[in-house]
Amino acid sequence: MPLQIARSVLATSGLFPDFGRFHQWLTDQKRHASMEVRVVPLDELAGWHTHPVTGNIAHESGRFYSVEGLDVRIEQTFAGSWQQPILNQPEVGILGILVKEFDGVLHFLMQAKVEPGNHNGLQLSPTVQATRSNFTRVHRGARVPYLDYFRDTSRHQVLADVRQSEQGSWFHRKRNRNMVVRVEEDIELRDGFCWLTLGQLHRLLAADDLVNMDARTVLSCLPFAATGLSGVYGSTVASPFTSCLVRSCELEAAEPHTMNALLGWITEVRSGLDSHAERIPLRDVEGWRRADGRIARPDGAFFTVVGVQVSAVGREVRTWSQPMIQPCDEGVCAFLVKKADGVLQVLVQAKAEPGFVDVVELAPTVQCTPSNHDALPGGERPPYLTEVLDARPEQIRFDAVHSEEGGRFFHARNRYLVVEVAEDFDAVRPGYRWVTLAQLSALLRHSHYLNVEARSLVACLHTLSVRPRPAFESAAED
Amino acid sequence: MPLQIARSVLATSGLFPDFGRFHQWLTDQKRHASMEVRVVPLDELAGWHTHPVTGNIAHESGRFYSVEGLDVRIEQTFAGSWQQPILNQPEVGILGILVKEFDGVLHFLMQAKVEPGNHNGLQLSPTVQATRSNFTRVHRGARVPYLDYFRDTSRHQVLADVRQSEQGSWFHRKRNRNMVVRVEEDIELRDGFCWLTLGQLHRLLAADDLVNMDARTVLSCLPFAATGLSGVYGSTVASPFTSCLVRSCELEAAEPHTMNALLGWITEVRSGLDSHAERIPLRDVEGWRRADGRIARPDGAFFTVVGVQVSAVGREVRTWSQPMIQPCDEGVCAFLVKKADGVLQVLVQAKAEPGFVDVVELAPTVQCTPSNHDALPGGERPPYLTEVLDARPEQIRFDAVHSEEGGRFFHARNRYLVVEVAEDFDAVRPGYRWVTLAQLSALLRHSHYLNVEARSLVACLHTLSVRPRPAFESAAED
Repeated sequence: MPLQIARSVLATSGLFPDFGRFHQWLTDQKRHASMEVRVVPLDELAGWHTHPVTGNIAHESGRFYSVEGLDVRIEQTFAGSWQQPILNQPEVGILGILVKEFDGVLHFLMQAKVEPGNHNGLQLSPTVQATRSNFTRVHRGARVPYLDYFRDTSRHQVLADVRQSEQGSWFHRKRNRNMVVRVEEDIELRDGFCWLTLGQLHRLLAADDLVNMDARTVLSCLPFAATGLSGVYGSTVASPFTSCLVRSCELEAAEPHTMNALLGWITEVRSGLDSHAERIPLRDVEGWRRADGRIARPDGAFFTVVGVQVSAVGREVRTWSQPMIQPCDEGVCAFLVKKADGVLQVLVQAKAEPGFVDVVELAPTVQCTPSNHDALPGGERPPYLTEVLDARPEQIRFDAVHSEEGGRFFHARNRYLVVEVAEDFDAVRPGYRWVTLAQLSALLRHSHYLNVEARSLVACLHTLSVRPRPAFESAAED
Repeated sequence: MPLQIARSVLATSGLFPDFGRFHQWLTDQKRHASMEVRVVPLDELAGWHTHPVTGNIAHESGRFYSVEGLDVRIEQTFAGSWQQPILNQPEVGILGILVKEFDGVLHFLMQAKVEPGNHNGLQLSPTVQATRSNFTRVHRGARVPYLDYFRDTSRHQVLADVRQSEQGSWFHRKRNRNMVVRVEEDIELRDGFCWLTLGQLHRLLAADDLVNMDARTVLSCLPFAATGLSGVYGSTVASPFTSCLVRSCELEAAEPHTMNALLGWITEVRSGLDSHAERIPLRDVEGWRRADGRIARPDGAFFTVVGVQVSAVGREVRTWSQPMIQPCDEGVCAFLVKKADGVLQVLVQAKAEPGFVDVVELAPTVQCTPSNHDALPGGERPPYLTEVLDARPEQIRFDAVHSEEGGRFFHARNRYLVVEVAEDFDAVRPGYRWVTLAQLSALLRHSHYLNVEARSLVACLHTLSVRPRPAFESAAED
């Protein structure tokens, strides 16, 4: 299967023969699906109420999610202990991509979806992106298309099926089920959906704000790692960098002790960290204030809880209201990578976030909102941020701005970077570790190892598996 | 490494040449280490106090553990929702075994340890069995011997290092770090410790109440699985049953899709289960009553929280008091196994327990206290209990009574069984699945997959890897 995935990575032409046709289709979708989003006071959200005692904001149905408070104490973080608002969404939803072979090449079924938090409207999402409330139809909406392929997989081949965490600073123990299911049978292609090869998706990941967070996290869980990849990719698509990257995907089974050491390191970090995160009433959260229809800190740092009112125009008109988290600024998520003995290594960070189920997950080398640190008194820059922001152009292997979940976060964007450092770069601090891509793939078969920002970056990193060839734009002339 | 482990399994003679010498040593230890344990009212526990508002019972230092209440709702369990007392011990302790080669054979350093809950006093425990309070020396006791080998593993080879859950019905989110560390350097052998081969430990696991729970769970995390094991074991130690068992240890890497399916099944069960477990004040727990110095249900079912007062006589005399959980009766933990196409398969259950961090873990086919079910009105027997209790003698491959953690549980014992069923036994209910031993080993590299009872049984199952040969008792005459 990993070899078939590699062949799809090589394919920049598929059911869409070229970028022009894809773009035409996307423009067409934009015409059919628009959304009007207005920021409104939290007190005016229809269907949501504030609990008179706790101050928690919840939906009248008791489903969806609620805004509550969290009391946090984590050793070894710069803040130590604090309180904050947090989204509580205990349901496990499904993020699923259907895969099918056309003309010998695996294609991935993507949906053009508008979400209220997207700053640009339409983005590509997985085939299915459904909360449990969606598919038990609490909101009495339409049936979720293609859902049955993921609810009963017995006739299909499951390439990935694993619950993964989402933003641990904004969500309390949120998990979604990330699934990739391959089907053999004919599938009706509905309006708003399209089949793309991985090579095409990889080109689109290089663009800003086009492939949404849910699509990125599902793509990162694909079984990319295997021996024999170099053979499939071949030398025509190889540069020294891509050769090292592909070799990095091949190296896990061969190095059990290294994998043992990696697992042992994660165990050690998790065992040693004294942490505590308990839900408290939103009203009691210190340092935050509900005023003027929003919940914010006096200094405006971190994020604000805002209300939005949405009118979606598709085949039917739907309007609804909801609270959302609006971060104070754009963030930076970056992997430092280096070639070492012909293998690409990736520097990961063991990061504690208050919403994690299991204390610590592996995160990008740098994951922060730089302006938060600039604002703090005596605040140092986070480790390695200087290496990322001051990188020379030839060091920057990947650089695109992507949106975070547009269903919960309002205009939340991160700049995702892959920055190559010299082979002798060995300034590794405690809490950081060099790993191979195959090791990351092995960890991604299980829950709670890579956080959502690291998974997004893994998806971005795989776009570098082949040397840039004639772009998707001109693929028809290949 | 798995092949070296297999060679240690074959060795019934080692630094102890025969069982007689071991027995002599053990008798000697019993003379040096005795303990007097008296059940006393919870109100008379020195150093522990009951919170005036919540009724929670905690140590005055704020460390160790506390007895609190838990409010539980788990779909698909026979009870549905209930409240109960629970032990809360947020610290992650270390359970570690040191391994060293003598005369070409791996030996495991075990400690003869008396614990207040043991009904028979002395049992074999891991080299190190320490709570974080132990090693930060809250109780001002002696230094924990050999601890440094586990706190700084940089000079050693780590064979296993993974946090694993403990009893999810009695503990709230308890995890201990299970470690096996191999050293090359000379190690001082302290009083109360001895080196045993795996072959010897396997013989001792067949005896009742001798290898304690902590030792069993650490042993289960050893990397038993690998290809090439059959070659090491050889035909002289093989019966049809052992051949299938060893082949079952060899089959994981070869079957990625099966492993995918297994992981997908676990994801599905965990995603679909609506569960909730929140700590509440012990005083508010419905259905339980604190009276006569204990906390129990009027019908005496499940367990009782009792107080004990302990006087330990070793090199120094120590006395202390503590609350403990005393189960109402002996339990049954059993794997049904079958030979299928030359491979031993093990029937596991996806079991929800209220104290689990991640909803569900894999448990033995049968894990219950039969008398609890007999007592319930209209209570059916749990699935497969009849198959276990009515098994014919030739079906019973393993049968021994083992103690659970003697530091927290008072006279808690389970009968551990491995029962072979016919190859055409396919009455598999929802929530149960056949797996190989190699798959279980692969899962045991990660946290939260196998519960502690399943891990104990995995350790027991590995004792069957070779056909019974001249017993350890007469190994000297081999």
